[in-house]
Amino acid sequence: MIAVDWGTSSLRAALLDDEGQPLEEHASPQGILQVAPGGFPAVLRGACERWAGGAGDPPTILMSGMVGSRQGWSEVPYCPCPAGFDDIARGLAWIDGGAGAPGMERVAIVPGLCCEGRIPDLLHGQGVPDVMRGEETQVLGALALLGIDSGLCVLPGTHSKWVRVRAGRIEDFHTLMTGEFYALLRRHSILSRSLPDIDGGAEDGFDADAFSRGVAQARGAPSLLQTAFSVRTLALFDRLPMEALPSYLSGLVIGEELRAQSLASRSDAVIVIGAPELTLRYEVALQSFGIASRRVGAEATWRGLWALGQHLETR
Amino acid sequence: MIAVDWGTSSLRAALLDDEGQPLEEHASPQGILQVAPGGFPAVLRGACERWAGGAGDPPTILMSGMVGSRQGWSEVPYCPCPAGFDDIARGLAWIDGGAGAPGMERVAIVPGLCCEGRIPDLLHGQGVPDVMRGEETQVLGALALLGIDSGLCVLPGTHSKWVRVRAGRIEDFHTLMTGEFYALLRRHSILSRSLPDIDGGAEDGFDADAFSRGVAQARGAPSLLQTAFSVRTLALFDRLPMEALPSYLSGLVIGEELRAQSLASRSDAVIVIGAPELTLRYEVALQSFGIASRRVGAEATWRGLWALGQHLETR
Repeated sequence: MIAVDWGTSSLRAALLDDEGQPLEEHASPQGILQVAPGGFPAVLRGACERWAGGAGDPPTILMSGMVGSRQGWSEVPYCPCPAGFDDIARGLAWIDGGAGAPGMERVAIVPGLCCEGRIPDLLHGQGVPDVMRGEETQVLGALALLGIDSGLCVLPGTHSKWVRVRAGRIEDFHTLMTGEFYALLRRHSILSRSLPDIDGGAEDGFDADAFSRGVAQARGAPSLLQTAFSVRTLALFDRLPMEALPSYLSGLVIGEELRAQSLASRSDAVIVIGAPELTLRYEVALQSFGIASRRVGAEATWRGLWALGQHLETR
Repeated sequence: MIAVDWGTSSLRAALLDDEGQPLEEHASPQGILQVAPGGFPAVLRGACERWAGGAGDPPTILMSGMVGSRQGWSEVPYCPCPAGFDDIARGLAWIDGGAGAPGMERVAIVPGLCCEGRIPDLLHGQGVPDVMRGEETQVLGALALLGIDSGLCVLPGTHSKWVRVRAGRIEDFHTLMTGEFYALLRRHSILSRSLPDIDGGAEDGFDADAFSRGVAQARGAPSLLQTAFSVRTLALFDRLPMEALPSYLSGLVIGEELRAQSLASRSDAVIVIGAPELTLRYEVALQSFGIASRRVGAEATWRGLWALGQHLETR
């Protein structure tokens, strides 16, 4: 089978063997926002036509991510939580005519999930809705890789997702705008005047001590609204060098995300899914909350799509 | 005496009578960032020279606000908390030669305050510093207008200040970046795509129900990082009309600010100081937390500067 992870700003594809291991991979910056209307089949052919068209049955091509959103190839309705492979497989959106090339007839988009979030809407008596597209595949794939069927997962990023899974089904989840808040404060707020100039394209270094100090600060405070200004005052009173302040701010924001999870009573490890630049920071921050963690990388997506493919075959 | 409120983006001045009532007022957009180096005396003369130069002693001209910051006329050291009129009067920075015109010899800048904030810095065993310039004058003026000497005050704005006063002295305070977070989310975040277009200069209307819904949401949730995304999902599922979403977001942010204050056990009213556009929202939000409030407007600054002037005369 062929697995495709098609997000807003990038496309990754892999040809998987019978064990779900990638034999070949392809990556391009052709995220859905870079694809013109009607251009999706051609981009998919460019990504993996060379893997299709052989003898025998055509491979199943499963695509997850924002490709199923309103701005993607085809809008696929959200599958409501709780949801496991069964429910997601039922919600697969098979593309009529596939990608329009021999051997590329069996193409489907994995539905995202929706849930009524854990924040009660006090005036209206219902939860606040939340949505994801792509993370459901990573979460179920990560658990399969770890050989477990329950756990609390976090997928750090622009919009971090916290996902609870029990007995192989995603029970609920919620979104925190952690990465976006960091970027807004780093680039557009008054705090940016106290931070190193990044207009030249230079990247911020990572200062582990300053990061931990930010995490500790966030852990003991009620709101990022209140801790954020300390970036400015610590600079004003020369209590932290300018180069350390971006890491301190990162600690404030990630620490706030963890504080909001009420993790104090957890005994089992939190599963952190994503690229190491971010998951390492979460591991450090979780440690300072006294919480163990297990990290899973980008292979979670391939494993999730492969498991979904297996599930189709055995039904 | 002459009272001057000289901030980042505007200058206001008033000639006060013997009771502290303004006889005449002057306002201009010549905030400190609009004044060229060395240009401060001339701008002050333009604002109030016509009130000076009469017979008798020259009037005392007291200026509060960012005019005392590094970017202002002259950097005045912060006065540490706790601080009352005594301490602030001792910290007045008298300008050599005044404003350089007859009758304008007695010119002083009111010092801002600093404190070690209430957020403990867990790793370093000290508070996080916080600062204000101008709000100290408003707070002490507001209490004088209300005829009380203790209370909890909030000055809503880009950087809201919460200030505790006891027996006429500001004990401590902290800054929340409420207004700035709102503006960042309103204009620069992904949420702006779900909100009415403001590039044409149109202003958001105020929807009281949506605002209260945002406040209620924030009150029951652990972090704005987590509630903010609901602006997007409520739009996605058509649960709130687009025109109501800015008010909902405003409620989320202001509600977060109030949640962070742990007001539940308060019995006395919170004093809300500022212009009515914002203080009315805070009054509504405080009500939904079950907290009473008293509002004081821009006259607080004149009263604070006048009381400081009285204090100088009676020493």
